Amino acid sequence: MRRARRAGAAGGASLDDAREVMRRCDVLAGISSMDGGIERVYLSPEHARANAQVAEWMGAAGMRPWQDAAGNARGSYPGATPDAPVLLLGSHLDTVPDAGRYDGILGVMIAIAVVRRLHANGVRLPFALEVLGFADEEGVRFGRTLLGSCAVAGTWDPAWLDLEDADGVTMREALAAFGLDPDAVGEAALDPATLVGYLEAHIEQGPLLLDAGHPLGVVSGIMGAKRFDLTMEGAAGHAGGVPMRHRRDALLGAAQTALAVERVALARGVVGTVGQMTVGPGAANVIPGRADFSLDVRAATDADRDKAWEEIRAHAVEAAGERRLAFTERLRHEARATSSERRLSEAVEAGVTAATGDAEPMELLSKAGHDAMAIASLTPYAMLFVRNGNGGVSHHPDEVVSVEDVALAIDAFEAAVLAAAQRVQDGLSA
Amino acid sequence: MRRARRAGAAGGASLDDAREVMRRCDVLAGISSMDGGIERVYLSPEHARANAQVAEWMGAAGMRPWQDAAGNARGSYPGATPDAPVLLLGSHLDTVPDAGRYDGILGVMIAIAVVRRLHANGVRLPFALEVLGFADEEGVRFGRTLLGSCAVAGTWDPAWLDLEDADGVTMREALAAFGLDPDAVGEAALDPATLVGYLEAHIEQGPLLLDAGHPLGVVSGIMGAKRFDLTMEGAAGHAGGVPMRHRRDALLGAAQTALAVERVALARGVVGTVGQMTVGPGAANVIPGRADFSLDVRAATDADRDKAWEEIRAHAVEAAGERRLAFTERLRHEARATSSERRLSEAVEAGVTAATGDAEPMELLSKAGHDAMAIASLTPYAMLFVRNGNGGVSHHPDEVVSVEDVALAIDAFEAAVLAAAQRVQDGLSA
Repeated sequence: MRRARRAGAAGGASLDDAREVMRRCDVLAGISSMDGGIERVYLSPEHARANAQVAEWMGAAGMRPWQDAAGNARGSYPGATPDAPVLLLGSHLDTVPDAGRYDGILGVMIAIAVVRRLHANGVRLPFALEVLGFADEEGVRFGRTLLGSCAVAGTWDPAWLDLEDADGVTMREALAAFGLDPDAVGEAALDPATLVGYLEAHIEQGPLLLDAGHPLGVVSGIMGAKRFDLTMEGAAGHAGGVPMRHRRDALLGAAQTALAVERVALARGVVGTVGQMTVGPGAANVIPGRADFSLDVRAATDADRDKAWEEIRAHAVEAAGERRLAFTERLRHEARATSSERRLSEAVEAGVTAATGDAEPMELLSKAGHDAMAIASLTPYAMLFVRNGNGGVSHHPDEVVSVEDVALAIDAFEAAVLAAAQRVQDGLSA
Repeated sequence: MRRARRAGAAGGASLDDAREVMRRCDVLAGISSMDGGIERVYLSPEHARANAQVAEWMGAAGMRPWQDAAGNARGSYPGATPDAPVLLLGSHLDTVPDAGRYDGILGVMIAIAVVRRLHANGVRLPFALEVLGFADEEGVRFGRTLLGSCAVAGTWDPAWLDLEDADGVTMREALAAFGLDPDAVGEAALDPATLVGYLEAHIEQGPLLLDAGHPLGVVSGIMGAKRFDLTMEGAAGHAGGVPMRHRRDALLGAAQTALAVERVALARGVVGTVGQMTVGPGAANVIPGRADFSLDVRAATDADRDKAWEEIRAHAVEAAGERRLAFTERLRHEARATSSERRLSEAVEAGVTAATGDAEPMELLSKAGHDAMAIASLTPYAMLFVRNGNGGVSHHPDEVVSVEDVALAIDAFEAAVLAAAQRVQDGLSA
């Protein structure tokens, strides 16, 4: 096998491929449940339509498209031999509410573009390729993230079937309505013995590549995250009648806690976010008796993350004590910090160097969670980040990438796949 | 006319009347749109049922019950002569969500109990009495308070017909569905030339009577209030990807403002409340790009209130500046501070003295708004406060009064009506 065509240096063909990737991101942005914005959640009609569209593109790229038992869109591209192992390529197709059009989607489109090139050039590799368009990474509908990749990783928990969406529909009911067998979701799982690893391209959901002036970056690992449902309970009361010193205002306890999250995160170099807040009873002339709010905290190591949470909790308990509120916590989600695999990362690094000419590509730690986190328990992973063109804006309609950066990303991702093939060829199987 | 039977000293008959008032408050608590709690809003099916129940009690008390063009429950008890002026007695029958059972309701039930006594004793006064059960004081459904009393006061604004409830139903549509003519609401207005004044009994929505050990109090006036819709707009973004220092987190700006409200209120001796807060996009892993929140600020004088608001606004603008947020404000509601009328208040004071033996009844300034605020533009008012048995808890299911205090309140309210009659008799018409 050749070392690879130097796809890089962003030739006209690469720009054409990138324009097609951008166009496809636009097409998927139009498959939305939200008027004037993008929202596509697990097991929705839009999920089905997106899978059908992606299957069409996979077929045109020389893959056999199929949908697995969890609703993931998958496409298989054979290797040089029938018993070749499989290298997985992918990202997710679902979105948050009022999303940008690249988060997740871009990585799936880049993977398809790479397979299309290989197919067009008649290239067969020492491994088969499988492109995965994961059906749920964001966890919007059922409050549990990474559903699609967990199913593939074999860590699907049948207890999740009882989770309910905001309308009280259980995941079991939603799977059945989507045409899937709720009790067969586990069949989406892959056998690790058949796998080479997993490569994922993703838009950076932060500003680091932009600030440093690099179009592409190599991900060294993904931060550990914990997500909590927090509650402050005090006493509702009349907004006029109850003197300030008599109050047990739950919102003020939550507000203090949200500000403490920011202070602790800045002091400790971690990230912490209160993204949800609901206040009850919720009238302008009634003192809040209850505030429910979320906390998302992430750090480079699980220990750093847990220390930050302990400190945040201490502030919450103190605020509750001062204000005579009851503070309660519930862990909703936990993701351990993971590291990318060295040899696969070297392949991505080689790909970036081939595409950009940069001998020492920038390395980043991802603070955002990715499907690779779930896949890490199945097979080694590495990730390529594509520069976010808008200061790191993500989970927002203003999320942007440039066509030039996407062209480099396609070249780099192809080169990474070829570099991994070279390593397998050389007997350095990951 | 006799100076009055000394109903006071809480005899057995008074306690029986009080028990019946408590029972009626329980009956109305059962007319609710909320499972396991009390909620009764303007022009709802529960409003119609409550009016029907109140009409039955009014009829049994010797009044002619009727419903006016705004949906207020009214009952007329004739005076000694056909052309006698009218003394209004009343409070409101609507509630906040998850309300207590006495706020408003208690005052209407006390007024009916007083008329029932007069009727039972064959007493005719130099003025007619009209009991008003106002249909909307809390403003829950359409976000505009005092709708019932404004209609009676002649300050109903036809523009309100276009206000929408949370389901997008306009007030015009709701009035028609309730069986009322939206264009005839103004006909509920009374002619001030026919009126003696307005007396209202109400549970204290604060702890001052309880703290001071008084069952009853005389209201000297009602604080001025302003209510605002406030918004902080920043930028949504990924809760992991965006570094803390890059964020424009709208919730944190709102949290700082809510805490500033408390600091300013404590420092200035006013009251301020953030009772509503909604955050968008509203996912645990998305930085809030927008926070909408309410502010309710009240003070003894309009000037004090406006100074407090200016200071709160300065804090909000500063927080927005630091965080690169856009801060916007909208005045939703304004009520000027009002004073009760001296001679009517003397009648209430005489009533409290007659009932409790307390020669110098406690005087209070109401921080809560009441129907009397709207009626003040029509005719002079005075108010009786009944001790809140639970530290001032109101707008909450734990709101409590004792049957003994209610017995004293009925005696005092009756004595106040009789004292007002004596003054009219003596030619000291209010």
